[in-house]
Amino acid sequence: MDDTFMAKKAQIPVIDKIKDNAQDVYNKIIRSQKPTMTTPVRSLSNVRYRAKKGYFEMLEKSKKRTLTVNTVKTFAQTLKMMALSKELIEANDMATKREAYYISKNWGKAGFSEQPESDTIMDDVEAMFGVNREQLKFVPEEKGGDIAGKLVVIDTDSKGRKLRIDCTKFGSGAYSIPNEVENLQFQSKAKFILAIETAGMFQRLVKYDYWDKNNCILISMGGVPTRACRRFIRRLSDKLKVPVYAFVDGDPYGYFNIYRTLKVGSGRAAHLNEFFCVPKTSFLGVTPQDIKDYKLPTHPLKEVDIKRAKDALKNDPFVIHHKRWQVAINQMLKMGVRVEQQAFAKHGLDFVVKKYLPAKLKNTDKFLP
Amino acid sequence: MDDTFMAKKAQIPVIDKIKDNAQDVYNKIIRSQKPTMTTPVRSLSNVRYRAKKGYFEMLEKSKKRTLTVNTVKTFAQTLKMMALSKELIEANDMATKREAYYISKNWGKAGFSEQPESDTIMDDVEAMFGVNREQLKFVPEEKGGDIAGKLVVIDTDSKGRKLRIDCTKFGSGAYSIPNEVENLQFQSKAKFILAIETAGMFQRLVKYDYWDKNNCILISMGGVPTRACRRFIRRLSDKLKVPVYAFVDGDPYGYFNIYRTLKVGSGRAAHLNEFFCVPKTSFLGVTPQDIKDYKLPTHPLKEVDIKRAKDALKNDPFVIHHKRWQVAINQMLKMGVRVEQQAFAKHGLDFVVKKYLPAKLKNTDKFLP
Repeated sequence: MDDTFMAKKAQIPVIDKIKDNAQDVYNKIIRSQKPTMTTPVRSLSNVRYRAKKGYFEMLEKSKKRTLTVNTVKTFAQTLKMMALSKELIEANDMATKREAYYISKNWGKAGFSEQPESDTIMDDVEAMFGVNREQLKFVPEEKGGDIAGKLVVIDTDSKGRKLRIDCTKFGSGAYSIPNEVENLQFQSKAKFILAIETAGMFQRLVKYDYWDKNNCILISMGGVPTRACRRFIRRLSDKLKVPVYAFVDGDPYGYFNIYRTLKVGSGRAAHLNEFFCVPKTSFLGVTPQDIKDYKLPTHPLKEVDIKRAKDALKNDPFVIHHKRWQVAINQMLKMGVRVEQQAFAKHGLDFVVKKYLPAKLKNTDKFLP
Repeated sequence: MDDTFMAKKAQIPVIDKIKDNAQDVYNKIIRSQKPTMTTPVRSLSNVRYRAKKGYFEMLEKSKKRTLTVNTVKTFAQTLKMMALSKELIEANDMATKREAYYISKNWGKAGFSEQPESDTIMDDVEAMFGVNREQLKFVPEEKGGDIAGKLVVIDTDSKGRKLRIDCTKFGSGAYSIPNEVENLQFQSKAKFILAIETAGMFQRLVKYDYWDKNNCILISMGGVPTRACRRFIRRLSDKLKVPVYAFVDGDPYGYFNIYRTLKVGSGRAAHLNEFFCVPKTSFLGVTPQDIKDYKLPTHPLKEVDIKRAKDALKNDPFVIHHKRWQVAINQMLKMGVRVEQQAFAKHGLDFVVKKYLPAKLKNTDKFLP
């Protein structure tokens, strides 16, 4: 249990929190009082960027759900969802969001008609107990995140036997991160973690044994990293205490949707950022300045790129906090172009490995924050 | 070299084919003749469904590209692409489609302005030599396909040492298929291969040790299988000589875009189907009949579902060939609903493992073809 949040939040086991809460509701009903449940407000208005902690933090605003004629269905659904979580924890099982939705089809009138409804209740329960969904044994649908390099992952099989998964032994393949990563343990003497946007670039670095020559761990995020992938990197970063460098396309999608989400989290799911952000990440590239320095082939910015960049300058607390990001984004807008991380191939397929990455890694203190 | 196509097509090494072809062009130029290059026509009009062989096969129509003022750029680009392939083969390197595009930025006037242009030339070269792109050392950008279960993959590291990758040893994680699978070897005593559409269902079966209890290989396709994933399953199917069962959502996307593509290939890339189809696949589920038999929760068919189903009945040579598929599709249209493979969760999370799959696997001869 190497994680801050495990130490801080899990002092009371989740299952006891569920029981306490349910007992509360029960006691009130017995005493003919109206039972209530309190969940934090989940929106940007209830969020602050804590630069020191490194993520968007949730504030104190909360909403109280009291059992009335109008709220009876949602109230019942919340209790059923809590009961399902309790069952899953006790059985050491898990359910995907979609499975949880289908399970509700057996809840009679408390059944959900569409999955977004059950997802919302799940988010409420998550925020109510101040834990992440994985601890409630609800796991995300999507998988994502491949690993190659100097890392041994320690997992257990269903019979409780330890498995040592050596990520140096996958050849041209990779270790695929499961969608539940909370119980994995790590061993590594790697010097840094390189989080890569595209599978193509990941495969290139694997091909050239980059992890072996540079004593590092390569992670393919495959676009915006999944929850499991973010949590995996975060736990790795906490445990190994080595820096994480992000290597993504040089466009607003790479800067904000991928990098910003990885580093500090997102506004929409602020109750999770504490567990899923990786504050020790810094931005290796591709920067607008790299386009000039390395004479890279580019594409013109699209409408949506320009809009996203201007929005970020105006509204994104992370960008507003970091002057250097504002400078970089303005430089990009002025140049009017975006760049893909594979553009280095213009100078030869091994240029990225032989020239770009070594040059960059000599000056990690110059990385964008 | 266990594959039909390797035996049949690779009698002449690819590199010699490239040299012969280039020599031909050179000789003609020296003799002041107009050099030509011949590529097969790549469209549905040049395709036949070979039920016995199990895939859409390319016919004899071809187009001849003669060097003239009008074709000079494409002609030069084709030669440059062939030269790049030769370099990659000689260096035992590879390039993604996107990297190949960026490399062309150094070809002066033969450079491509957009990636679709370079992709087209790559497809032409591929069809011209009757090989697949991977043999030309051009690899797809996207990765995809996770494996768990009774399979040992044998790969080599960059120093030529053999690596035994045991897919029973990854705990809750999985082996992620690389984007170049041609040189992998396999060892397995599995009885069948289960190709699964969603990562969620894959994770469910991994959680319950399904592969251990049923002596099989689980493959997560993650939607429409990538080229690498399809080729991996095909090579596995050729080598192990065991059946492949597809377990996908019960909707037109699952039936055609996923299952049909996996089994017989697609119309658009008919020059590849021979290598990438998996003719020994049959359809486990979810069928429209399963919805009735298992009282599954459903969703109404969308406009696009209905259109896709009607198109298939009318135009898809695979569906036209298989009466039983026509019956199934008409049944779905009559019921007006689609079903997700996780709908079984309504009856309990382990229902799919304890009831549905065992019942289905008792009657594999009843699977849709």
